[in-house]
Amino acid sequence: MRILGVDPGYAIVGIGVVDYDHVKFRAVEYGAITTPAGRPIEERLMDIYSDFSSILEEYRPDAVSMEQLYFTNNTTTGIAVAEARGVLLLAAAQKNIPIYSYTPMQVKSAVVGYGRAEKEQVMEMTRRLLGLKAVPHPDDAADALALAICHGHNGESRLPTAALEETKGGNRRPRQVQYKEKKTL
Amino acid sequence: MRILGVDPGYAIVGIGVVDYDHVKFRAVEYGAITTPAGRPIEERLMDIYSDFSSILEEYRPDAVSMEQLYFTNNTTTGIAVAEARGVLLLAAAQKNIPIYSYTPMQVKSAVVGYGRAEKEQVMEMTRRLLGLKAVPHPDDAADALALAICHGHNGESRLPTAALEETKGGNRRPRQVQYKEKKTL
Repeated sequence: MRILGVDPGYAIVGIGVVDYDHVKFRAVEYGAITTPAGRPIEERLMDIYSDFSSILEEYRPDAVSMEQLYFTNNTTTGIAVAEARGVLLLAAAQKNIPIYSYTPMQVKSAVVGYGRAEKEQVMEMTRRLLGLKAVPHPDDAADALALAICHGHNGESRLPTAALEETKGGNRRPRQVQYKEKKTL
Repeated sequence: MRILGVDPGYAIVGIGVVDYDHVKFRAVEYGAITTPAGRPIEERLMDIYSDFSSILEEYRPDAVSMEQLYFTNNTTTGIAVAEARGVLLLAAAQKNIPIYSYTPMQVKSAVVGYGRAEKEQVMEMTRRLLGLKAVPHPDDAADALALAICHGHNGESRLPTAALEETKGGNRRPRQVQYKEKKTL
């Protein structure tokens, strides 16, 4: 099974392609899509869409594992990251590739076994699990590889994907948790 | 000049097409793209992308005027709205249509002349400026028409579009304000 991990962003999108055969992980490729600073956001989104579509075409993953966003303080750039994530979701959905979302805590749990692990521990475990000589660079690519590993560890159980709905009058709120169709891994 | 106003969302995208000849506004068409609740976000994004692309194809606007998002409290659905906005930006950019973003306060200022105007005042002024018999429904379509009027009023001056960049170490922040090339209206 081939899993494509994605760390979403508008300046840097981390990409990590991992093959998993129920016993071990193998890093196929990793890197990042980058867009130039100062370029209008809509043009950066076009670049991301086009590059990510090519990557999906080339590596033909069985699943995409993408970080679930949550916003805390820096909402200005947070909005642009979510806009980029929308474009990434679109590209994968258009190619009919199932998408799974994981929070940073789920990734840490899956990779290190502890949801509050430090970033360095996650990177080191990612390196070891993939048998790499050094921690992958950039950080965004390492995060993407960790997301792919996380899905390998979790993918055999049914995975929740949050469905959102709005109520009348625009009072939007999360409504329910739905389950994706079980994938045979 | 034809302006397509867009009120972004993942459940309802408000659409308002307005022609403006420097003297008066004319509503060409308005309505909304809707996506079914409970459908996975990535499929809703596909619907939005496809429907919005068709609308751009049909009405061929000279400019898209889209609400600038800002997040306050409800960040769970806020992220999905931003994801949808990313897909809308992508569709317009792919057709080479210039995109302008306005905050709700800028829209109120342009339509009512007062940035803290009530929603009802904005809707009533939108109705009057467009010579409509009733306030357009749904609210999202009325908001989209107001966004189109806002761009008509503002579009002759140079319009700022925020460029974002990230600094090293992921400490992202807005950096500068850039200007789009002046459009001849």
